[in-house]
Amino acid sequence: MNFDYVQPVKIHFGKGRLQELPKVLTDFQGQGLLICSKRSIKNGLAARLFQENPQLIATFTDISENPDVTEAQECIRLIQEKEISFIVALGGGSVIDLAKVCGTLCFSEEEVAAYLGSGIALPTQRLPLIAIPTTSGTGTEVTAAAVLTNRELGKKSPIVSDNFYPDIALVDPELTLSVPKQVTANTGMDALCQAIEGYWSKGNQPICDALAIHAARLIFEHLVTTYHEPHNLEAREKMSEASLIAGLAFALPKTTSSHACSYPLTNIYGIPHGEACTLTIDYFAKVNASERLLDFAQKVGFESIDAMCEKIYDMKVAMNMRIDLKDFAISESQLADLVCLSHHPNLLNNPVEITDEILETMYRSFI
Amino acid sequence: MNFDYVQPVKIHFGKGRLQELPKVLTDFQGQGLLICSKRSIKNGLAARLFQENPQLIATFTDISENPDVTEAQECIRLIQEKEISFIVALGGGSVIDLAKVCGTLCFSEEEVAAYLGSGIALPTQRLPLIAIPTTSGTGTEVTAAAVLTNRELGKKSPIVSDNFYPDIALVDPELTLSVPKQVTANTGMDALCQAIEGYWSKGNQPICDALAIHAARLIFEHLVTTYHEPHNLEAREKMSEASLIAGLAFALPKTTSSHACSYPLTNIYGIPHGEACTLTIDYFAKVNASERLLDFAQKVGFESIDAMCEKIYDMKVAMNMRIDLKDFAISESQLADLVCLSHHPNLLNNPVEITDEILETMYRSFI
Ligand SMILES: NC(=O)c1ccc[n+]([C@@H]2O[C@H](COP(=O)([O-])OP(=O)(O)OC[C@H]3O[C@@H](n4cnc5c(N)ncnc54)[C@H](O)[C@@H]3O)[C@@H](O)[C@H]2O)c1
Ligand SMILES: NC(=O)c1ccc[n+]([C@@H]2O[C@H](COP(=O)([O-])OP(=O)(O)OC[C@H]3O[C@@H](n4cnc5c(N)ncnc54)[C@H](O)[C@@H]3O)[C@@H](O)[C@H]2O)c1
Ligand SMILES: [Zn+2]
Ligand SMILES: [Zn+2]
Repeated sequence: MNFDYVQPVKIHFGKGRLQELPKVLTDFQGQGLLICSKRSIKNGLAARLFQENPQLIATFTDISENPDVTEAQECIRLIQEKEISFIVALGGGSVIDLAKVCGTLCFSEEEVAAYLGSGIALPTQRLPLIAIPTTSGTGTEVTAAAVLTNRELGKKSPIVSDNFYPDIALVDPELTLSVPKQVTANTGMDALCQAIEGYWSKGNQPICDALAIHAARLIFEHLVTTYHEPHNLEAREKMSEASLIAGLAFALPKTTSSHACSYPLTNIYGIPHGEACTLTIDYFAKVNASERLLDFAQKVGFESIDAMCEKIYDMKVAMNMRIDLKDFAISESQLADLVCLSHHPNLLNNPVEITDEILETMYRSFI
Repeated sequence: MNFDYVQPVKIHFGKGRLQELPKVLTDFQGQGLLICSKRSIKNGLAARLFQENPQLIATFTDISENPDVTEAQECIRLIQEKEISFIVALGGGSVIDLAKVCGTLCFSEEEVAAYLGSGIALPTQRLPLIAIPTTSGTGTEVTAAAVLTNRELGKKSPIVSDNFYPDIALVDPELTLSVPKQVTANTGMDALCQAIEGYWSKGNQPICDALAIHAARLIFEHLVTTYHEPHNLEAREKMSEASLIAGLAFALPKTTSSHACSYPLTNIYGIPHGEACTLTIDYFAKVNASERLLDFAQKVGFESIDAMCEKIYDMKVAMNMRIDLKDFAISESQLADLVCLSHHPNLLNNPVEITDEILETMYRSFI
């Protein structure tokens, strides 16, 4: 098989390594912007970073979950006003993705909204980015994708560009100790979906295969413990490793059916990203059953694909995650909308063609 | 555990992809030097490359197995004379390693010999390098190491520098179809040693662990077939994949005891690199036995470390490789020399301290 591989991000992984940020920043010139959540202001983390890193001169914190294009636009205004020359993004996928987009689109004359789902070319220039994840899930610290939402149009979509690879991923598991239980579950299962979908994606390739197996094994072994014992730093560390390596595993093959379906589930019903992906992953594992997937299941420690699916289902139950859509009393016409809005480009990466019939049968099983 | 990861090489893998070199070269400016073996001149491959890639303006071919510092010096003279601005290296580890060194030391006032084993700082400048392996073994197309020999001093040693990462690794399994049987065995087992040693190295880390398991599995599955069926392109392809991924697996953790011992075995007794490493790998697997290594053996498909060692031994026999040193009628004083000369820095990466007693007992079991 033919494949290409590239992974330009320098990774620093380890407990307490946030303290190495000053050393990391010696490689970057000029004035830095800290993009982070309000939580990092409140708990004093941002203040600590400003004290330890005098190159940081401003902060941007107006970022919601599933950040909107208008928030990115605000951040770009700040970057231009302050003549920022590099970005430090400290947060979950929402924060880091917004930072990725702003680091490139601050060189554009166009509005951010114009780039969402349109495929128009991005500026070639970019600001250097140091990504510091505070959740264990998206792996966005090592990918070329950034997901934004246009709430006005009810649209959520990734933008993909080689420009979006961070320069540095600084992964410090201690930062995830404060992640709330339900976010731990959702983000951890997002990483599992990304490993599995990267593996079965039409864009699969051997380097990413090996990494997907490694990541999935860790998640099956450590996520439920992490959920029940949020202060278990060893378990948190394993989940940080898993989400980083799942990120490497899907960065090139990209995600598929479960991620495609997650976008309308998040947009319309407000289901968090990881929970939305997880709702359908075991269903699609049966649809996508193959020799290759069996090999994956076995290397990850199961006897069969069915056994792996059962384990996924049990994990959802154990972690109080959604296993159906009954809460929403979805009508026939809403079901038709869900089917229609699941036709996201990611669906084309799925190894089996996902027809409207498959989608409808699946969604019907959840309502 | 803390770890850093970096892998700056862009990889293009696939049968027939040598034909994409013209496209690859559009990213490089100026005049290129083709460094290759005389074999590539004789069989017309070099002529084809010159025809397809007009940017190539000269060739250097005076390269022996385990290339000498004087050969690198000659190549540097040519680079300077022709005002070369990038290098295409087509060949086994010997050719690519020489190219790596020359691409940086052409910016030095010092002799190449001065850099071997001395640890003095290399120039920061470098010429871009496109590495095209023709063996499946060293993985040098994705590592920061280059091994040269100083025959005058009877010394063989790696030089390591971030400068030595190629820009591009173009891995075309078709190029390995002509590799002679015994070179197939030696180079394939070199890749296996590198995967295993990278895994048990003190510098081990999870991303490389996952890749080592993937590579070792492939080698256990496909190398003996490749040996017996040199024209089996599917098997060759698997071995190209394995050696590339083994390269990624040991690039950062580095090699250990078997590689340390290989250097005197090659220098003094002329045993080819891969065969020299393989001689001791199963012995050291027993010395290094641990829970971690058992996990490796199991993930690679064995019940125990012993079962893995038996398989390695059987592969050596099946491929007509050296299983002892009886041929050389090694004397007591020569044995003492071997022990002494095995004190290569790589030995310090070994997870268990390798005493002179261990070395002596081992070498004695071979004579
Ligand atoms: N770019 C990619 O490759 C990629 C991949 C997957 C998902 N995503 C996107 O990333 C976003 C989801 O990111 P996420 O799952 O990391 O969640 P998130 O960033 O939206 O954070 C979820 C919640 O957890 C809080 N939080 C984050 N870190 C915390 C901590 N250490 N302690 C306490 N609270 C904390 C946040 O403030 C937020 O309220 C979605 O928009 C999704 O589509 C992107
Ligand atoms: N830099 C690293 O990371 C690294 C790792 C391992 C080994 N090495 C070094 O690499 C060298 C060994 O390289 P190698 O094992 O690739 O062997 P090699 O390059 O020395 O080649 C072995 C023999 O095979 C011939 N050959 C190569 N390709 C051929 C082909 N396609 N068809 C027919 N003949 C072919 C060569 O001409 C040579 O005679 C040693 O010096 C070793 O120390 C370097
Ligand atoms: Zn996701
Ligand atoms: Zn080697």
